[in-house]
Amino acid sequence: MTLAAVDLPRAYRLLNHGPVTLVSSAHGEHRNLMAAAWAMPLDFDPPKVAVVIDKATLTRELIEASGVFALNLPCRAQAQATLDVGSISGRDIAHGDKFAHFGLATRPGAALAVPLLEGCVGWLECRVIAEPHNQGRYDLFIGEVIAASADSDVFRDGRWHFEVAPAAKRTLHYVAGGAFYVTGESLNLRD
Amino acid sequence: MTLAAVDLPRAYRLLNHGPVTLVSSAHGEHRNLMAAAWAMPLDFDPPKVAVVIDKATLTRELIEASGVFALNLPCRAQAQATLDVGSISGRDIAHGDKFAHFGLATRPGAALAVPLLEGCVGWLECRVIAEPHNQGRYDLFIGEVIAASADSDVFRDGRWHFEVAPAAKRTLHYVAGGAFYVTGESLNLRD
Repeated sequence: MTLAAVDLPRAYRLLNHGPVTLVSSAHGEHRNLMAAAWAMPLDFDPPKVAVVIDKATLTRELIEASGVFALNLPCRAQAQATLDVGSISGRDIAHGDKFAHFGLATRPGAALAVPLLEGCVGWLECRVIAEPHNQGRYDLFIGEVIAASADSDVFRDGRWHFEVAPAAKRTLHYVAGGAFYVTGESLNLRD
Repeated sequence: MTLAAVDLPRAYRLLNHGPVTLVSSAHGEHRNLMAAAWAMPLDFDPPKVAVVIDKATLTRELIEASGVFALNLPCRAQAQATLDVGSISGRDIAHGDKFAHFGLATRPGAALAVPLLEGCVGWLECRVIAEPHNQGRYDLFIGEVIAASADSDVFRDGRWHFEVAPAAKRTLHYVAGGAFYVTGESLNLRD
């Protein structure tokens, strides 16, 4: 795998097909990771995203304190880890750190002080655009994407190439109750 | 195919895996249909959705006038129609009616005055929750789901069953430039 920066005007394409995300966050000595299926692009350039982050979560507390978060895009090889981090609160484990609890490796963000989950296939580092009404009423956070990167085995030249990469690197779409769909067959109607 | 109502607390599951949507709208004698990949659930019960609708679109004008819209979930058999309605503005065709222009059949909404596209596999009828700041600044609309329905060949008992249905009824995930991914293999980690 080769890690490559993604041009910001193409960053929305990481998220355009609706994959499940893992939201990473950090503040002071604390860091955390949660699953979020409710995330989508909100603008092209500068790229923005919208993501729902429940008030009960430790992630919410860390993001409100730091003003930054990252959307990590897990792949099929990480389905169990995605379910694991989505099934327990950071409030219920030692030091609130799911990375440590589940033995998940990270690297630092390229632009922001936020941990990125290794083994994912795409990453969007985001700075919160403060919208207190949305955050309070809908648990809805808006972020500007400050940096984006991807595993160039599956995302290069501004688009996904799952069809020529190992199946283990396909992204996931969350259903409920431990069930996912894997990103499937490619259809190109303009070929 | 059998059309069945979807219980409102399970309506979010129609959208949870991130499929592309077609937004239908109507006001007075006008009606329209546009493609929107940027749509997601926003709450469980009562269910809410968020969707991005550009200011330049005829759909935007109709939704702002009527206060209602529907998210239709097209399936693989409708990939070309999805691309077609996403490639031209209602402002550029006769009477602004893409249903008529492309010969697309509709039925009336069960609860709201909005046309639903036949041949889709799921439908969410939504009433706009007025949020002028979000609409103006981000083109972001929030809707409460008032009624939901699905093709019970692929969605029943509150979940999708693509794995036992014809491939033509799988949902789509939009990439860019005429490319889609089809919803793929099912992974159930709690079986």
